Amino acid sequence: MSSENRLSEMISLCREQLFTAVVADTLDMLGYHHQVLTPGITPLDPSRILCGLARVGLYMPIYHDDETTKVYEHEIALVDSLRTNDVPVLVCHGNKKISPWGELLSERSSYLGAAGCLTDGCVRDSRMIREMGFPVYCAGTNPSDTKYRGKLMMWDVPGEIAGVRVESGDLVFGDQDGTVIVPSAVIAETIEKSFEKVTAENTVRDEIRRGDKLVDIFGRHEVL
Amino acid sequence: MSSENRLSEMISLCREQLFTAVVADTLDMLGYHHQVLTPGITPLDPSRILCGLARVGLYMPIYHDDETTKVYEHEIALVDSLRTNDVPVLVCHGNKKISPWGELLSERSSYLGAAGCLTDGCVRDSRMIREMGFPVYCAGTNPSDTKYRGKLMMWDVPGEIAGVRVESGDLVFGDQDGTVIVPSAVIAETIEKSFEKVTAENTVRDEIRRGDKLVDIFGRHEVL
Amino acid sequence: MSSENRLSEMISLCREQLFTAVVADTLDMLGYHHQVLTPGITPLDPSRILCGLARVGLYMPIYHDDETTKVYEHEIALVDSLRTNDVPVLVCHGNKKISPWGELLSERSSYLGAAGCLTDGCVRDSRMIREMGFPVYCAGTNPSDTKYRGKLMMWDVPGEIAGVRVESGDLVFGDQDGTVIVPSAVIAETIEKSFEKVTAENTVRDEIRRGDKLVDIFGRHEVL
Amino acid sequence: MSSENRLSEMISLCREQLFTAVVADTLDMLGYHHQVLTPGITPLDPSRILCGLARVGLYMPIYHDDETTKVYEHEIALVDSLRTNDVPVLVCHGNKKISPWGELLSERSSYLGAAGCLTDGCVRDSRMIREMGFPVYCAGTNPSDTKYRGKLMMWDVPGEIAGVRVESGDLVFGDQDGTVIVPSAVIAETIEKSFEKVTAENTVRDEIRRGDKLVDIFGRHEVL
Amino acid sequence: MSSENRLSEMISLCREQLFTAVVADTLDMLGYHHQVLTPGITPLDPSRILCGLARVGLYMPIYHDDETTKVYEHEIALVDSLRTNDVPVLVCHGNKKISPWGELLSERSSYLGAAGCLTDGCVRDSRMIREMGFPVYCAGTNPSDTKYRGKLMMWDVPGEIAGVRVESGDLVFGDQDGTVIVPSAVIAETIEKSFEKVTAENTVRDEIRRGDKLVDIFGRHEVL
Amino acid sequence: MSSENRLSEMISLCREQLFTAVVADTLDMLGYHHQVLTPGITPLDPSRILCGLARVGLYMPIYHDDETTKVYEHEIALVDSLRTNDVPVLVCHGNKKISPWGELLSERSSYLGAAGCLTDGCVRDSRMIREMGFPVYCAGTNPSDTKYRGKLMMWDVPGEIAGVRVESGDLVFGDQDGTVIVPSAVIAETIEKSFEKVTAENTVRDEIRRGDKLVDIFGRHEVL
Repeated sequence: MSSENRLSEMISLCREQLFTAVVADTLDMLGYHHQVLTPGITPLDPSRILCGLARVGLYMPIYHDDETTKVYEHEIALVDSLRTNDVPVLVCHGNKKISPWGELLSERSSYLGAAGCLTDGCVRDSRMIREMGFPVYCAGTNPSDTKYRGKLMMWDVPGEIAGVRVESGDLVFGDQDGTVIVPSAVIAETIEKSFEKVTAENTVRDEIRRGDKLVDIFGRHEVL
Repeated sequence: MSSENRLSEMISLCREQLFTAVVADTLDMLGYHHQVLTPGITPLDPSRILCGLARVGLYMPIYHDDETTKVYEHEIALVDSLRTNDVPVLVCHGNKKISPWGELLSERSSYLGAAGCLTDGCVRDSRMIREMGFPVYCAGTNPSDTKYRGKLMMWDVPGEIAGVRVESGDLVFGDQDGTVIVPSAVIAETIEKSFEKVTAENTVRDEIRRGDKLVDIFGRHEVL
Repeated sequence: MSSENRLSEMISLCREQLFTAVVADTLDMLGYHHQVLTPGITPLDPSRILCGLARVGLYMPIYHDDETTKVYEHEIALVDSLRTNDVPVLVCHGNKKISPWGELLSERSSYLGAAGCLTDGCVRDSRMIREMGFPVYCAGTNPSDTKYRGKLMMWDVPGEIAGVRVESGDLVFGDQDGTVIVPSAVIAETIEKSFEKVTAENTVRDEIRRGDKLVDIFGRHEVL
Repeated sequence: MSSENRLSEMISLCREQLFTAVVADTLDMLGYHHQVLTPGITPLDPSRILCGLARVGLYMPIYHDDETTKVYEHEIALVDSLRTNDVPVLVCHGNKKISPWGELLSERSSYLGAAGCLTDGCVRDSRMIREMGFPVYCAGTNPSDTKYRGKLMMWDVPGEIAGVRVESGDLVFGDQDGTVIVPSAVIAETIEKSFEKVTAENTVRDEIRRGDKLVDIFGRHEVL
Repeated sequence: MSSENRLSEMISLCREQLFTAVVADTLDMLGYHHQVLTPGITPLDPSRILCGLARVGLYMPIYHDDETTKVYEHEIALVDSLRTNDVPVLVCHGNKKISPWGELLSERSSYLGAAGCLTDGCVRDSRMIREMGFPVYCAGTNPSDTKYRGKLMMWDVPGEIAGVRVESGDLVFGDQDGTVIVPSAVIAETIEKSFEKVTAENTVRDEIRRGDKLVDIFGRHEVL
Repeated sequence: MSSENRLSEMISLCREQLFTAVVADTLDMLGYHHQVLTPGITPLDPSRILCGLARVGLYMPIYHDDETTKVYEHEIALVDSLRTNDVPVLVCHGNKKISPWGELLSERSSYLGAAGCLTDGCVRDSRMIREMGFPVYCAGTNPSDTKYRGKLMMWDVPGEIAGVRVESGDLVFGDQDGTVIVPSAVIAETIEKSFEKVTAENTVRDEIRRGDKLVDIFGRHEVL
């Protein structure tokens, strides 16, 4: 199986069977302690899992529009370049005054097979995006366009979102608890070890349900 | 048709067929760039559209109650004066420690035909208000009454809510994306041009769905 | 009836028939003006009422883990000690970087008859907790464990949560509007007088629905 | 000696010989644990001690000016009513967009024998006020007048400033460390016991300077 | 006299004889109510007045450096282009993690006759800049360079700093009270009318010093 | 020369001849990009340089005091254990409600040869500490003691202060621009390379003063 196919399969496994808490624990165990986004980035539709490979874009606040500004040029290029399982990660540096994402970009991304969108800015057309079923995780909603307010200036460069460093190719994984960035170098190892942790937690859950004390269970398994 | 009826009809059209993102774009195009409330004011029930004419009231934090305080006097007067399609806009200057709105005021407003309530303070009795179906957009919920904590001091004067200037008679329009204030002088023009923009976006959506590139679509229509 | 049974009965009455707004008003009337948590602590599942007796624990941020840290020791002890109607109140001093609560602690607490959990930190495994039906009120969700990040250091000592003082034995009462702390000394009096206020509000609601002006109703009943 | 003279003498003693840290410790010991203003209110001139009796005024944000607004009316009345040792406490509820105080009000207050000014809003004409030597403690400086932006609405009513309740007649005491509110009922007791604590600290300082260990000194005096 | 010389003379008059409070009042009177920067931008040396013509540059947060980044290219171009009385206005959108200004840029700007620097980012080499006597107003100090962290992307375009719109050519005026932006179209009118207001305030000051009541003085002059 | 003496000599060199901006640049160059404290931690006396070896202590907010609390026990132990050039780094996790440092601890530390104190909490007795000449860098001043409010719980464990990881033995270096943490493993290398950078900057300064363009100077030296 090609490495691309293997990656694609891992992404499916992660999306369908894992959850962010166990992946965050695994990353902690591997020595990666700063991979969880600060609370405040939430899914438009909590039932949609966000799982795919980051395509990082950096926005910049602007305060005008004119013929030379070409506010959408790089945004259009980034979205037109999306591939299966890609997740545009639109870094707004915490600026909630703009919505770099909306229905039409979701339509195009969905057409290209992208796996969702992550931004620390806001999003608009939220009702239509929910109806479309496209996974979008964002800092809130806002009817305001980027025109006059912000422009994507660089993409496929390193970024930082909600306190976490992210590069194109990292795994973005979000569910109802939050969003985790898995560095590209440890995607396989992280997913593999996460499945082991799930097994251990199942044992613990069973023992709790039969009435064992936490102090005894933790003494046996060192998992909580 | 009287100008009052015409306004009433426009409000209905806006409530039923438009959405805040397109209205915000139209206001941008008309040169009004600061009409969208800062994210953080959300509907108690996201399925309820808020659309009506502002009746602005300004609150003041207080720290005691006694016989001379008459904490509810102006609030009662404002609510008793509401007319069809009015939307009390209760400006708390971002103070979330008080709930100037609740079930009983919703009941009375609903009886008078008011179209909803907007506040940058909090709201209480949120479950009953949701059940009642009255559209309330607010900064959160809080069981705390205004008694001992805040008093409406002036009404039908200019105010500012979540960063946007608002005067009685302006159109308040809120949906799942956020809330927009349309100045009274441009209500008709804004609604008219918003419908034009909806048509253009429908074309773009069709072209995206058939697989056109964004760069080509934007080149043709300059809409995104 | 034993005083313990009486308390247990009052908790049931409160949980099933009261709401936080009326309890907050009653506490105001009794001279307790700082009993409502600052907005921002919300239920994982808004349909679950939180009502029980506080068991206060204080967390401390930490920045490492090693063999001497024993990060879970006191947390395990506190949870293993829970009794029917207890509500662990996990004071994180507003730190949202940690989730001191999750599915397995909810399982154990539920087994022991605890009435829910309240924290100004975050919570993880939110989907499973919602499915379990265990009432958890928190400052948000976060996949991050306390390991490497925080440790419970003291319990059954006074605390402060979202601006309100709380001690073990106080009544914790939360619903969709927010959360109220009823000091242990006035639980009975507060619940009793809250029922009286509910009756008065029912009268007011009826009069509003038949079209009376607020100014007249308030003149008659002094309730709003 | 009249009680007024005795109060005046205590104010002088406090201003000249005490410091806020020891007064805060004394209030803690007397059971008053919330008397220190949250950091952020600082003196225009750190060499000026603020010590006098509060005259509380509450401001309200406004967003316009017209003939009926009479923005300065109550402010003028409050300042014209100041007596020797009075300290106007201008409660802006943390609003730094207005400067309710400036050079001309300082001139008038100084003429009337007032002891300074405390506000959680801003101040303007800061250079002239510093040159005048009038003690002003504030949340910052801002060239913006209150006209169009804020109005004093009530005075000689209870207020809250930087998290502390304050009423007219309370002692306001500020130095380079911060500002403390001493409730009127315990002014004499607080000042008396503060002088005792100063004596104990002098002993401790001497023992530290001769090289004693803190653990031994604290064992002997229980003061730190 | 050329219009350039006249502007240069007005800048000198403003720098030497006016203060921001009176200029802010004048702008209010002319209908410009949003010209004062939000408190928090302060002078490195409070004795230095900032007065000159804005040259606006917009920064963007970045998170890496490599050969293609050329982090300083536009910054160098902007500073090399400064003329007598110019004031670079470096818009960082409130980002205090970078210091876009330091000693060497101050040296070059000073050599070119620039009148100072204004930024809502931070500044480094603060001691040397103070010793040099170059007027710098900023959001704080920070030893961190922009390399790896931020880049100037556009200049001589409209910007916004601490809540105020600013364009190249506007007058920037800062003193110990704060900073005001005077739009280029009203510089002459604003300065002229500010001198009139100074005269009126001198009269008021004299009347206060002779003991007149504020209520009478305000009745006579309507100035405070 | 012993390694201890060599370290001591490097600390002296750093304190007397370097500045934080150049050390931060050197750390950036060595790949350490997160060593500068977030702005907001400032010196009580800007003329005092803070330079020494970290002794990390972690505080925890508490909300009561009783005989078992022993609020000062570990604080006393940490301070009594200080050695020449030590700098207690008191991690309060951004809590400004407490002052873990004051005059008496400064006296004892000074007696033991400690090089200063760094905290993200507040400090009291600021006037006396300034007079004493002991270098203290803090988040502000506050008359409030830790008693009833906070307790040092662990020391000589890893901590985080104003966004930067710090361990006992790291070099703490603060001046008027801010504070930098140099990890113990790279102290020598950092100081050495910082001196090289100072030399390069001196050349640049000379060229600026003789009127060279920045674009030419940067082309030659790649330093700014």
